[in-house]
Amino acid sequence: MLVVKKFGGSSVAEPERIKRVARRVVEEHQRGNQVVVVVSAMGDTTDDLITLMKKVTNNPPEREVDMLLSTGEQISIALLSMAIRDLGSDVVSLTGGQVGIETDEVHTKAKILKVSTERMKVELEQNRVVVVAGFQGINNNKDITTLGRGGSDTTAVALAAVLKADVCEIFTDVDGVYTTDPRVVPEASKLTNISYDEMLELASLGAQVLHPRSVELAKQYGIPLHVRTSFDHREGTIVEEAPDMENAPVVSGVAHDFNVAKIGLFDVPDKPGVAKTIFKALSAHNINVDMIIQSAMRNNMNDIGFTTTHDDLRKALLTIEAIQQEVGFKGYTHDEDVAKVSIVGAGMISHPGVAADMFEALADEEINLEMITTSEIKVSCVIKRSETERAVKALHKKFCLDDLEAARNYGQ
Amino acid sequence: MLVVKKFGGSSVAEPERIKRVARRVVEEHQRGNQVVVVVSAMGDTTDDLITLMKKVTNNPPEREVDMLLSTGEQISIALLSMAIRDLGSDVVSLTGGQVGIETDEVHTKAKILKVSTERMKVELEQNRVVVVAGFQGINNNKDITTLGRGGSDTTAVALAAVLKADVCEIFTDVDGVYTTDPRVVPEASKLTNISYDEMLELASLGAQVLHPRSVELAKQYGIPLHVRTSFDHREGTIVEEAPDMENAPVVSGVAHDFNVAKIGLFDVPDKPGVAKTIFKALSAHNINVDMIIQSAMRNNMNDIGFTTTHDDLRKALLTIEAIQQEVGFKGYTHDEDVAKVSIVGAGMISHPGVAADMFEALADEEINLEMITTSEIKVSCVIKRSETERAVKALHKKFCLDDLEAARNYGQ
Repeated sequence: MLVVKKFGGSSVAEPERIKRVARRVVEEHQRGNQVVVVVSAMGDTTDDLITLMKKVTNNPPEREVDMLLSTGEQISIALLSMAIRDLGSDVVSLTGGQVGIETDEVHTKAKILKVSTERMKVELEQNRVVVVAGFQGINNNKDITTLGRGGSDTTAVALAAVLKADVCEIFTDVDGVYTTDPRVVPEASKLTNISYDEMLELASLGAQVLHPRSVELAKQYGIPLHVRTSFDHREGTIVEEAPDMENAPVVSGVAHDFNVAKIGLFDVPDKPGVAKTIFKALSAHNINVDMIIQSAMRNNMNDIGFTTTHDDLRKALLTIEAIQQEVGFKGYTHDEDVAKVSIVGAGMISHPGVAADMFEALADEEINLEMITTSEIKVSCVIKRSETERAVKALHKKFCLDDLEAARNYGQ
Repeated sequence: MLVVKKFGGSSVAEPERIKRVARRVVEEHQRGNQVVVVVSAMGDTTDDLITLMKKVTNNPPEREVDMLLSTGEQISIALLSMAIRDLGSDVVSLTGGQVGIETDEVHTKAKILKVSTERMKVELEQNRVVVVAGFQGINNNKDITTLGRGGSDTTAVALAAVLKADVCEIFTDVDGVYTTDPRVVPEASKLTNISYDEMLELASLGAQVLHPRSVELAKQYGIPLHVRTSFDHREGTIVEEAPDMENAPVVSGVAHDFNVAKIGLFDVPDKPGVAKTIFKALSAHNINVDMIIQSAMRNNMNDIGFTTTHDDLRKALLTIEAIQQEVGFKGYTHDEDVAKVSIVGAGMISHPGVAADMFEALADEEINLEMITTSEIKVSCVIKRSETERAVKALHKKFCLDDLEAARNYGQ
């Protein structure tokens, strides 16, 4: 059996934890399995590097940011390999470049284009554990790129896909996927399984258990993901293609996301091509835009609102300012003091009225909705940041998520 | 003009110093010169990584040590490049692998086999400052190798050689090469120039201003080295081929080295091939052996003593133990509590009696000599570690090194 195991930064945050991860890896290897390990930077290493960087410049070239941040994972793979060797398994560490993880040119947010299996197969055939640096690759100029925060999950799934791994285990500091953040709602329930699509919505919505791109990739290649804790041997949550749809809860999770910033453009001329110009410009600067709303027209003028992340806000505002004259809108505002709460569930498709129930639960709490978007399996609302906890608790209760049996029967 | 500038770890130990180095680099670049910068790991980074490593294992595979330690320079090049860009010069950072610094397979002590100029030339032609990670390369398996402590000097000289640079400036925390360590002898004089051969002896003997291999390489390719401080614009010391031999001091420097461990083998059978077996075995494990002495024979038995570094001592003792039966010596001892003091001077060749003067100076201080070796331009003695400072002071005084004019006339 070939197993890919991914350990996040908290699992390798200090030498003792690295040794514990090594024991877990060596157990698997000594059972006769082939093991590829993907590892993130230790604990706060990435944040520490960013702090150091900010003492040098506030405007770093992104190529150099990748050069800097990729050292975090390189430190982890070296130390973990040493610990594995100490326990008696032969082992080799490989950077993204050494594996041959080829990406596009977009520094700090690169996408994987191709993964070579050659070097990994050579090492696996020699019965070595292969320890790969997550989060990083190289572009065709041999420059180091990084996949963005959480990109180590993507690395793990990409390796599992090209190696045709039997399973991809994502070890994290929680023991599975919950119906909502247990730090906010202590009654949250652990899901034993969840579909790729639901996980994708939850991941995109700030559940922070898995990186959304990794879920996309797993879905695309049909790689089952096992999300579990590195602290003990309990089973976690399996993410797979539509598990037992009929018996799934209507709403399987409530997510919230603080990394949201709202931008509003007002008095935008109502003529064809305006939205295209705005969102092409934002996309040309690799700014992630999430929700978009356009208000009703008055006097041939619209208001257009959209959300982005805090990280991208500054770049987005500069972009907006640069095209203001061309587009001809009167002004713009922004608000970082917001959050997004969402409900996700594959069962929504066959249960109309779920969105209305959500709005009702929030109205009962007198929470004002600033923006709304829906998809087949989720509904998201932007609200005031300070109201997030109340909103999540109300929604979790509304859809009976503290009792999965009740959640399955919701609305029947 | 093409200039290679090398900045050591103390020159980039913190963000403010990185910015100062950047200003210095940008000044040169904006004068219209092509600039290649080689940089070491920031301050204590390498030591910090080693401390971290020792919390994971005491017996790390050397390949993984290189994987770990090479991150130190990678952090430096990224941050320095950011600071340079901030000051308006276009810039690119390159790891040893990205430059194409190919080395042999000997991890932690690799030798440079070949340096590609291709990538550097492309970047220089685009008027970019090229910032290269010192101390590291890749072997033909694409594995990261390191050149050993002080290897950044070697990187700088190797780049200067292949790029046919006009000058190679080595910036350090001292303002040039001194007749001895000014921390030990405050009267030490700064040399305005020194020959490669003398510098080589001083470097090998623990003067720690330049890495000996870098001096060897500079001599081989005739690259003048300018050793100077990064803290101001004073001229330092030029290392070049035999500058004004006739006018050179007889002894140009006194060096001391604490990184010495003495090993003694006793009752070694006096038969052919014994020394070969011992020193081949040590060399097969890449253990640096410096001084070797063999005592007078008695009863067909010899005593053989040699020195190595503290780092290599453990490996050396294991090697000795492994061949004890084969070679048939009776036992062995070791002593780390020793130091080496040396005098160096190209003028010794034409001034006999310099060694005797050295022994006299040490005898006057009642310092016992445990081992002695000589070459054409140096004499070294192993003494008790605690006597080092007294020895250096006595020798510096004996050869009039507090007054270079007097030193030139010594013995005349």
